[in-house]
Amino acid sequence: MDGIFITFEGPDGSGKTTQLRRLAETLKQSGHDVLVTREPGGTAISDKVRSIILDPAHEEMVDQAEVLLYAASRAQHVHELILPALKAGKIVLCDRFIDASIAYQGYGLGIDVETVRAVNRFASSGLQATRTYILDVPVEVSLARLHKRAPGQDAAGQQLDRIEQKSAEYHNRVRAGFHQIAAEQPERVFVVDANRSEDEIAVDILAECSRLLKEHLSV
Amino acid sequence: MDGIFITFEGPDGSGKTTQLRRLAETLKQSGHDVLVTREPGGTAISDKVRSIILDPAHEEMVDQAEVLLYAASRAQHVHELILPALKAGKIVLCDRFIDASIAYQGYGLGIDVETVRAVNRFASSGLQATRTYILDVPVEVSLARLHKRAPGQDAAGQQLDRIEQKSAEYHNRVRAGFHQIAAEQPERVFVVDANRSEDEIAVDILAECSRLLKEHLSV
Repeated sequence: MDGIFITFEGPDGSGKTTQLRRLAETLKQSGHDVLVTREPGGTAISDKVRSIILDPAHEEMVDQAEVLLYAASRAQHVHELILPALKAGKIVLCDRFIDASIAYQGYGLGIDVETVRAVNRFASSGLQATRTYILDVPVEVSLARLHKRAPGQDAAGQQLDRIEQKSAEYHNRVRAGFHQIAAEQPERVFVVDANRSEDEIAVDILAECSRLLKEHLSV
Repeated sequence: MDGIFITFEGPDGSGKTTQLRRLAETLKQSGHDVLVTREPGGTAISDKVRSIILDPAHEEMVDQAEVLLYAASRAQHVHELILPALKAGKIVLCDRFIDASIAYQGYGLGIDVETVRAVNRFASSGLQATRTYILDVPVEVSLARLHKRAPGQDAAGQQLDRIEQKSAEYHNRVRAGFHQIAAEQPERVFVVDANRSEDEIAVDILAECSRLLKEHLSV
């Protein structure tokens, strides 16, 4: 595997997508070959699965189905898009990956974390991120950012999806889950205080990523 | 669990759906409360997942995604439909279940059988059929029945789905997989020679099912 696989994690409203795009821009300007992608989604099949997962009409969806649909979408994404890009030497920046399933479904929904890990190990054929940035903000902050336009609608004025509608208690368990993941794998996971300005966060991530690239290139 | 869960397995073209319907009719006429359902599908969410799995345009679907989509569809089907029906004391007749995943994906596609089992155990919360009828026919027979109208079309004149288009070699591995499952769990699985007339097959299944119901009612 010649490329570098970098994932961004954290709640909606943490600014993770903005930061991912900024890093991608900077890396491209430095001449790197960068692929930006996201989960759930990233391929035609994954996008169809994504639309089933996030449809607010699917209130009856059971937890096991949710875990398996995310994993199915991921399996297609990994094998069709991410692995070939890494093989071609690209830097792949991915908005959410397996840690999101562990945090949201394992810690958030209370599904056995080891089972979620095992299902996703199968889905991804064992692919793990080289580096993961978790954008950490208090739940009140991320939820307030999401709800700032109108209740039941997100910042873009669209209806909140099935996951976003869940309770603050759930989102607190998810945040604790991200902290647990970071504590268990400090060599891979870098927690970023995202309760700061966009520029301050970007500087931290870029500094850490530069070190990562230097290490990688010197191997 | 008060109800009885009976599954029908075997290739397309084995007559399994016809036999399932005949048994359902007979049981209803005897006053039993019967639910007839099928996989993949059976609920609104499962049907949407089914349409992704079987779409002939999805040639790029990787094996892991296929396994996980079947399992996701099954998870919803089991928890939303089958378990409540069994709890209500019904006889549930299901067209394909976990054995189909083990035979088609495990033995057919060559994915580790224990992994397929584990993923499906999670999906179904461990639900297992009380009795399984495997309708067994030589691959030439089932394929010939499917192709009898026109190549690339099934008996109803519709385009063959993504699974049906696979090679005869694949279908032979699937058949051997069904035999393996039957050999491992003789107390649950009943293999029916389906290379006979519809009536002959129905008589065998009804005789076996009557014994099963007698046992069940005497407990």
